[in-house]
Amino acid sequence: MSALATAATTPVPAPRLALLGTGLVGSAFVARHARLGGAAAGLPGFRWLANSRTCAGCGEDAGTALDAARAAPQGAAGHVLAAIERGDIVVDATASDAVAARHAEWLARGIHVVTANKLGHGAGIDRSRAICDAQARHRSRYGDGATVGAGLPLLASLRTLVAGGDRVHAIEGVLSGSLAWLFNGYDGREPFSARLRAAREAGYTEPDPRIDLSGEDVRRKLLILARAAGWPIAAEAVAVRSLVPAALASVQGEVADEAWRALDVPLADRLAEARRDGGVLRMVGRVDAAGATVGLRVLAPTHPLAGGEGTDNRVAIWSDRYPAQPLVIQGPGAGAEVTAAALLDDVLRIAAG
Amino acid sequence: MSALATAATTPVPAPRLALLGTGLVGSAFVARHARLGGAAAGLPGFRWLANSRTCAGCGEDAGTALDAARAAPQGAAGHVLAAIERGDIVVDATASDAVAARHAEWLARGIHVVTANKLGHGAGIDRSRAICDAQARHRSRYGDGATVGAGLPLLASLRTLVAGGDRVHAIEGVLSGSLAWLFNGYDGREPFSARLRAAREAGYTEPDPRIDLSGEDVRRKLLILARAAGWPIAAEAVAVRSLVPAALASVQGEVADEAWRALDVPLADRLAEARRDGGVLRMVGRVDAAGATVGLRVLAPTHPLAGGEGTDNRVAIWSDRYPAQPLVIQGPGAGAEVTAAALLDDVLRIAAG
Ligand SMILES: NC(=O)c1ccc[n+]([C@@H]2O[C@H](COP(=O)([O-])OP(=O)(O)OC[C@H]3O[C@@H](n4cnc5c(N)ncnc54)[C@H](OP(=O)(O)O)[C@@H]3O)[C@@H](O)[C@H]2O)c1
Ligand SMILES: NC(=O)c1ccc[n+]([C@@H]2O[C@H](COP(=O)([O-])OP(=O)(O)OC[C@H]3O[C@@H](n4cnc5c(N)ncnc54)[C@H](OP(=O)(O)O)[C@@H]3O)[C@@H](O)[C@H]2O)c1
Repeated sequence: MSALATAATTPVPAPRLALLGTGLVGSAFVARHARLGGAAAGLPGFRWLANSRTCAGCGEDAGTALDAARAAPQGAAGHVLAAIERGDIVVDATASDAVAARHAEWLARGIHVVTANKLGHGAGIDRSRAICDAQARHRSRYGDGATVGAGLPLLASLRTLVAGGDRVHAIEGVLSGSLAWLFNGYDGREPFSARLRAAREAGYTEPDPRIDLSGEDVRRKLLILARAAGWPIAAEAVAVRSLVPAALASVQGEVADEAWRALDVPLADRLAEARRDGGVLRMVGRVDAAGATVGLRVLAPTHPLAGGEGTDNRVAIWSDRYPAQPLVIQGPGAGAEVTAAALLDDVLRIAAG
Repeated sequence: MSALATAATTPVPAPRLALLGTGLVGSAFVARHARLGGAAAGLPGFRWLANSRTCAGCGEDAGTALDAARAAPQGAAGHVLAAIERGDIVVDATASDAVAARHAEWLARGIHVVTANKLGHGAGIDRSRAICDAQARHRSRYGDGATVGAGLPLLASLRTLVAGGDRVHAIEGVLSGSLAWLFNGYDGREPFSARLRAAREAGYTEPDPRIDLSGEDVRRKLLILARAAGWPIAAEAVAVRSLVPAALASVQGEVADEAWRALDVPLADRLAEARRDGGVLRMVGRVDAAGATVGLRVLAPTHPLAGGEGTDNRVAIWSDRYPAQPLVIQGPGAGAEVTAAALLDDVLRIAAG
């Protein structure tokens, strides 16, 4: 383990982990950490474990600490991280805007941040700029590989291109596992609402599938990619064409099963249109120097994003060195397991120095 | 430029470049270095420039130095790098076994090596091991992103998976641009030899296409991938099924145009077989814990390597976190431009510390 190898030669104390969020991703992170041998194998150990209700200032026994954090009553989440120091690592496995709002502050204190929370670089441009500035000035590191494609080598590859002198020309992607699955297999034989029901039952969508269908999640990921490519675009600059009809968007609380049928005719029409043009339907995010869009598109069968299976994410990058045939990266880009693995990759990279 | 940013804080002198090889890739490297602003922009400057005939111990003016190296008579290639020091960077843009044989020695002297030459990790296992050992012991760095896929994020992604605790289950790839092109478009309407002629004329193959068709180049790339994945396999352990019939393999010197027709019937037979099974023909390298093979295979249309256009390389990686749907990386994986860009990426990464 590289963390072990460097521990002997590094004068600074080993970093300690503060895990925020003990939901699907946070729990998977703890489990993977243990599977790789935990602190005994040289990995940074857990010092703090918190959710929105409680914080456990815990020793190296992560499993017990996690139980404690889960079981404890309303607690000290507000006081979390009081003793955190330069060189420690905050792992943000929440979806909290309040937590993301503190990323830059931690970085400015020399604390590293590793995040699955998209609201760092995927929200307002000021916050994104503050994160970049704090990193550059304070030599702290920001690991966000988990935020887009759940650790698929998208951000790393993009940043390598930029660091190597390439200008990025355009990025296009199928950036949502649930939307990928919905359209990869939508052939009109069953109505779209039936396919959506199947996706919900398989756990591919959010509990409220409107969050997927609105394109909001894709918009955040596109912002993160765009900013990594060097375009400091504002959050509002992404033109998103939601798939949710107005009648559904206005429903408060849960949408009745029947109501989803409002999707069927519009999407059948789009499918017919795609077929007339000999293409396929995909929900695509695209960003280039001219702007950013998220919406349903008809792609020619030879388009680099037309292929793909199941819930695979798929991204194409054009740049100075890839002006015609793009670099394409494809694979499982959602799920707690791969997301937790991406978080741990970033932790290990930081721990290795 | 990151090289500039660190220069001020680094106590050691800026690394100097020794470029070995002034052919297609070496020249493209010099041109890209200049396009990015050269030493004036904070990039490491050229100190030595050599080919098999001569060596120029030159200043920062790379263009002139390259002319000098090209124009000079039989020269001092043997004495090259006499004054090279810890922290300098050798860029190997040759295909020379003699040069690759020195990689480990340079690393052991604290000199970094960046290489497009596949004979470092793509030859005997002892040499590959010596490179790993020297790197680990002497904290020098080995940049080999250009050797497979010409800088496509293959080796980096594979090493990230391994560093993050994943075991790699299998790697499969279409690893040769020329073989990709030959089979992506082979539909039987023209004989295979006619397609081969077109590939030669477009510059996709080596001057002697038997080097491509034999699978030798793919074998080297597969060795490099396998070893990066943590399998220390011997060079001889790769079972290669060459596409070159014995009658052609034994021809000394150039193969007559007529003679290539010996390929037509065997490949038409393979194509017919593929069609009978509803699949496509691809020249595939595969490695897993059980062994490594290179050969023509019939792939189902849904196989991750069945797609792809033109000369694109395409690699699928299965690992602990990608046990079913693999990580797939695809893109232009050959050509002097992308190869030179990959070399410069590695140089910049090393210079940034
Ligand atoms: N699941 C995936 O496939 C995936 C993929 C990529 C990225 N992500 C991202 O990963 C993050 C976590 O996803 P998840 O599926 O694990 O969500 P989840 O199961 O809902 O868990 C969220 C956790 O965050 C905690 N939390 C909320 N606000 C907090 C605060 N202010 N301080 C401390 N903890 C707080 C919650 O606490 P309580 O337990 O008290 O509610 C909960 O433990 C999200 O940003 C998500 O977008 C998820
Ligand atoms: N072209 C591509 O698309 C591509 C892609 C990936 C990797 N690569 C690899 O990149 C390397 C270079 O390819 P290339 O296309 O540029 O080849 P090339 O045009 O044949 O150039 C090779 C250069 O190496 C020089 N050389 C040979 N032995 C030497 C020695 N002992 N010391 C110093 N210089 C020596 C040659 O010198 P002379 O000029 O005196 O002959 C020549 O300048 C090869 O390993 C190749 O496999 C190429």
